[in-house]
Amino acid sequence: MRTVSFKDGKLVLIDQTSLPAKFQLIKTDNIERIAHAITAMEVRGAPAIGVTAAFGMALAAIQSNAKDVDAMLAELRKTKDILGATRPTAVNLFWALNHMMNFAEEHLADGIDSLGELMLAEAQHMADEDVSVNQKIAKYGNELIFDGAVIHTHCNCGPLCAVDLGTAMAPVIYAHQQKKRIHVFTDETRPRFQGAKLNAWELANAGVPYTLITDNHAAHVLSQGKTDMVMIGVDRVAANGDIAAKIGVFGLAIFAKYFGVPFYAISPTSTIDMNIATGKEIEIESRDPDEVRKVNGTYVTMPDANVVNYAFDVTPNDLITAFVTEKGIVYPPYDENFKRLVSLRRSL
Amino acid sequence: MRTVSFKDGKLVLIDQTSLPAKFQLIKTDNIERIAHAITAMEVRGAPAIGVTAAFGMALAAIQSNAKDVDAMLAELRKTKDILGATRPTAVNLFWALNHMMNFAEEHLADGIDSLGELMLAEAQHMADEDVSVNQKIAKYGNELIFDGAVIHTHCNCGPLCAVDLGTAMAPVIYAHQQKKRIHVFTDETRPRFQGAKLNAWELANAGVPYTLITDNHAAHVLSQGKTDMVMIGVDRVAANGDIAAKIGVFGLAIFAKYFGVPFYAISPTSTIDMNIATGKEIEIESRDPDEVRKVNGTYVTMPDANVVNYAFDVTPNDLITAFVTEKGIVYPPYDENFKRLVSLRRSL
Repeated sequence: MRTVSFKDGKLVLIDQTSLPAKFQLIKTDNIERIAHAITAMEVRGAPAIGVTAAFGMALAAIQSNAKDVDAMLAELRKTKDILGATRPTAVNLFWALNHMMNFAEEHLADGIDSLGELMLAEAQHMADEDVSVNQKIAKYGNELIFDGAVIHTHCNCGPLCAVDLGTAMAPVIYAHQQKKRIHVFTDETRPRFQGAKLNAWELANAGVPYTLITDNHAAHVLSQGKTDMVMIGVDRVAANGDIAAKIGVFGLAIFAKYFGVPFYAISPTSTIDMNIATGKEIEIESRDPDEVRKVNGTYVTMPDANVVNYAFDVTPNDLITAFVTEKGIVYPPYDENFKRLVSLRRSL
Repeated sequence: MRTVSFKDGKLVLIDQTSLPAKFQLIKTDNIERIAHAITAMEVRGAPAIGVTAAFGMALAAIQSNAKDVDAMLAELRKTKDILGATRPTAVNLFWALNHMMNFAEEHLADGIDSLGELMLAEAQHMADEDVSVNQKIAKYGNELIFDGAVIHTHCNCGPLCAVDLGTAMAPVIYAHQQKKRIHVFTDETRPRFQGAKLNAWELANAGVPYTLITDNHAAHVLSQGKTDMVMIGVDRVAANGDIAAKIGVFGLAIFAKYFGVPFYAISPTSTIDMNIATGKEIEIESRDPDEVRKVNGTYVTMPDANVVNYAFDVTPNDLITAFVTEKGIVYPPYDENFKRLVSLRRSL
């Protein structure tokens, strides 16, 4: 089933914080609850967050009692602010919120009453489009994966990070379905264990042979000379090809360079933010230190230990061999090639 | 107090698996219990393991009912095998066991009855010597630490990893005591969290300003350009300067090279194993996958997740700026300089 869907008037999310121990759904039509789901990472992964926010905007319009256009726009702007305050780094969130806001402004001329249903259809369309984009990513990425390939990944970029199929794991699972014999090393991804809790679970479900390792095993594994490529998902891409991705990706990129292993960033074009020139301009989310201090509710250090806990790091473009997008594989120079790519970008 | 000591006929260990939540002691004169303490990492850190094993050998002699030299030697060899089967990588363990065995062979001429007390005195002497070695390491390492220095470390190499003072943290704590304003970044060190549980606790106890981070934050922290040096402890050093150290050290060394930060291996000369030419010959301990699958008894992935869990990795000599030993700071070429150093090594 899809990570994010809409049924009987409610947004339905797979609760990713309960996996793999328990598979449970969150069903809600409450905006604050949806914002909490994003903040608490019950729904996570850049594409999934974007679509969730789009459904949230549609729900706000459906529930509105606004009597005129200005009141409706004010309510939608308030919802946009609530949902936009959840996680600062993933560009898809802001892209989806802006898109839904623009969509509302364009369609208010058709009347306030029909706006909710129109926005819901648009959010649904964005969800379908996400799946379609990831199908294309799966096929392009699969071209890089040869029979026998060993692939290293970090965090969770499988079906759960998007509406379905995922980003970095879409080509991997697709290659496996094409009967290529592959093996995946997946980093557990502290502090929230998305690799251990989600990526390993997805790979096991898909029947892909994998080995789970702690993050600090990566250099050792790569040093064995058996790894053919790194494939990771991305949260925001700058116009020059610098990327913000899950904390630890930068380190993995440095290892890939050191060991001469190709490093592929798997990224729908919606994740490319042409408004920011370089990675230096990307705001990096700093999260609760207790994510580091505690695991499953139990302290692994002193309750008052001094901790910094960034959700993402920025990997410079010179460490990235290529981007895999739904429009094809993009090699350097990225500034130039992204401009061409974005002009091809389907305007939803 | 010392991590490893001997009182009222019993070996007394600080139980490092209960820290920082609980400070509790293990008091035992049972060889199997001592072996378990090493295997389960209740006592850990290369120097502390060595001294613990030495006390174990002394206890075996004290408890022996052997009537002749051959029977005594057979019993001691059995104890040596039990204690030697605990952890394969730390050279100090084998060095201490061999030393105590040789000591026994040399002193059996003086009579079986007095052997236990003689061996106990020798183990006590080794413990004192460990403290003395680390005092010297503290002073040599302190020469590298300037006022205002930011130091990055991995795993726990403070007072708890040795009888007292520690290796990598000995210079750091000493520099702090000399009123140098320093700051330490300490990696949490999955899977067993020695950084989070032990190193952060020791630094807090010593009053040293520190920040605890997950292992995959290291590249991001180093990329900020504020880190002046990496200092880590070592479990075995090959004759060419390759080192086996806690898993993740190799990655940290690659980062240090990438960011142009000096990388210092803090190592008593007893950790240098001139019998092995390069790091390739070092046996790397593979530990229970459940250390990765579970934290504090609770699963963070599927109970049957495929996991590899190496305790150590091997860092090649070209990534190491210098070794800090009790005989001074050693720069490359290591083969040559270690030979000179070892000829100076005090034969215990």
